[in-house]
Amino acid sequence: MEVAPRGVVVVETPYVAVDVDVLDRNVAGMAAAARDRGLDLRPHAKTHKCLEIARRQVEHGAAGLTVATVSEAELFAGGGFEDLFIAYPVWPSPGRAERLRALAERIALRVGVDSVESAGLLAKAVGPLDVLVEVDSGHHRSGVRPGDAARVAEAAERAGHRVRGIFTFPGHGYGPGLQQQAARDEAAALSEAASDAPVRSGGSTPTAALAGAGPLTEIRPGVYVFGDAQQVELGTCDWEDVALTVVATVVSRTGNRAIVDAGSKVLGADRPAWATGFGRLPEHPDARIVALSEHHATVEFPGEAPARGDVLRVAPNHVCATVNLADELVVVRDGTEVDRWRVAARGANT
Amino acid sequence: MEVAPRGVVVVETPYVAVDVDVLDRNVAGMAAAARDRGLDLRPHAKTHKCLEIARRQVEHGAAGLTVATVSEAELFAGGGFEDLFIAYPVWPSPGRAERLRALAERIALRVGVDSVESAGLLAKAVGPLDVLVEVDSGHHRSGVRPGDAARVAEAAERAGHRVRGIFTFPGHGYGPGLQQQAARDEAAALSEAASDAPVRSGGSTPTAALAGAGPLTEIRPGVYVFGDAQQVELGTCDWEDVALTVVATVVSRTGNRAIVDAGSKVLGADRPAWATGFGRLPEHPDARIVALSEHHATVEFPGEAPARGDVLRVAPNHVCATVNLADELVVVRDGTEVDRWRVAARGANT
Repeated sequence: MEVAPRGVVVVETPYVAVDVDVLDRNVAGMAAAARDRGLDLRPHAKTHKCLEIARRQVEHGAAGLTVATVSEAELFAGGGFEDLFIAYPVWPSPGRAERLRALAERIALRVGVDSVESAGLLAKAVGPLDVLVEVDSGHHRSGVRPGDAARVAEAAERAGHRVRGIFTFPGHGYGPGLQQQAARDEAAALSEAASDAPVRSGGSTPTAALAGAGPLTEIRPGVYVFGDAQQVELGTCDWEDVALTVVATVVSRTGNRAIVDAGSKVLGADRPAWATGFGRLPEHPDARIVALSEHHATVEFPGEAPARGDVLRVAPNHVCATVNLADELVVVRDGTEVDRWRVAARGANT
Repeated sequence: MEVAPRGVVVVETPYVAVDVDVLDRNVAGMAAAARDRGLDLRPHAKTHKCLEIARRQVEHGAAGLTVATVSEAELFAGGGFEDLFIAYPVWPSPGRAERLRALAERIALRVGVDSVESAGLLAKAVGPLDVLVEVDSGHHRSGVRPGDAARVAEAAERAGHRVRGIFTFPGHGYGPGLQQQAARDEAAALSEAASDAPVRSGGSTPTAALAGAGPLTEIRPGVYVFGDAQQVELGTCDWEDVALTVVATVVSRTGNRAIVDAGSKVLGADRPAWATGFGRLPEHPDARIVALSEHHATVEFPGEAPARGDVLRVAPNHVCATVNLADELVVVRDGTEVDRWRVAARGANT
């Protein structure tokens, strides 16, 4: 194994590298922060989709895992995780109902509902479940208005479910300067919806540091394990907290512009309007990825671009998308490959 | 197998469905159009990554296939395709050089070069290859200026390669009303670079219909096999030409807004500034996908949104990204599943 300057392991580019020391620091740090504030931590496993990382989170005291889909739940249940929350308004199509029933018999399973209709259909198709009512705290995606949560909870109870509480995702905190407001909205929505529910569960990496004084009993951040360019640009982590990067080679260049072989098929194409580009280069903080094709990132440097053949690290904008494109993560410590982790739940969308 | 209204097969959503009759019409149509204009057709296989679709293209007279990476070339060579062009400025890192050499011994292989340096290194690391010099026709990604092509071609010949010709990708045709200009730029660049080169190869689905009268000898469109929302919005195909859609379920709704379970992890997050949203619904042409999360698309309808549990078809913005997220394609004919095709080159980025 050859090692390039700046501790980059040389394998075939592009590949996804995870610095395990940075990862472990992130896992331990969020666990300690939640504990200090008396909050349960139920990390969202959709970010990493890896059994190895989930084990580290549980070893650091996570109360369980959050997942987005039934197939993610099946994967993590198969890996030995016995307390899972599907934080999604699961619709019980016939095949999915059968799978949910099998899961609920096997592990401690919580499922999201956001309507009287879905609560009723879940009861009919699957049977009684532990459910949490989803509340919209301002992201305006799924979830009921806070004032409607009690109605849905009562209907769910009548349908036979055990209502464990409420949850929300303050996704509108994904914008510059919006974290404080999103955290306030989250707290207000959960208070209004059911301040006495046993479980009052909230997001999210951008707002996690702001949770605690309010009504939350649980947080579900995901991205914090790796960090990404979005989080750095939002100010919720620093470059030294970014554990996952795509390692890429300069394949073409002219003047201050280099083309590297990490495109949207390895980085993902996520690019919020406020982002400075399609990802960032931690070792070149003033460089910008001005265009992205499937196998080309066009990088503009403030001065002369690196040479052809140079190996660079690229932090993706949104690390969840990057991981879901990779079959495995190359695990490095001090620039040396120490392991490979399978992205076991890659593509687990159903 | 249950069949929903509008001929949608009911399997677990979200899934990627390909209407094989529409696909076959697209494959045959592009083949005929190229033949009529005396152009070789070398379709880009990065779009479909499927052996079954590549076979259909060759059966319709494709001169060979285009791929983007060495690993795609390995995959298609393994599937019996013996004439492949890696339309990329391949950088010969040690592992990649070894793999290129093995491929070149086994099949008719063409490789892109866009610098004297890469031509020299390829010769040294791999040995003599059939190369095409990449020319920048206005997309400003990789490729040399047309006036520099002769210099790179001469250097490649001196290094021992067999220079088969030149190629360009007029990617700046991906914008409303830009196809004519991009096709003119493509023709001008190829004429200036080497109007007497045996192979003068160009793009691309948006510009393919405009190629022919100029200096091109070969076209390399990819997306045309499936079509996508981008192509419809660019005016280069119609809804009835869109062969691939993601089938999704309404999981939540309020008023004119529905949340469906096809998010960025199945559709991809590509969204050019000129697109009307994050994909389109062929059966609801006035609906718009106004937001996209990993497992939620937020769809606004002109009137009342469909009911929870309704099954809808979503055309992704950029079908190449969608296919690269899927492990298999559900092949349908008249709304009935007739086959599954493996996305054999999924994730083949190296």
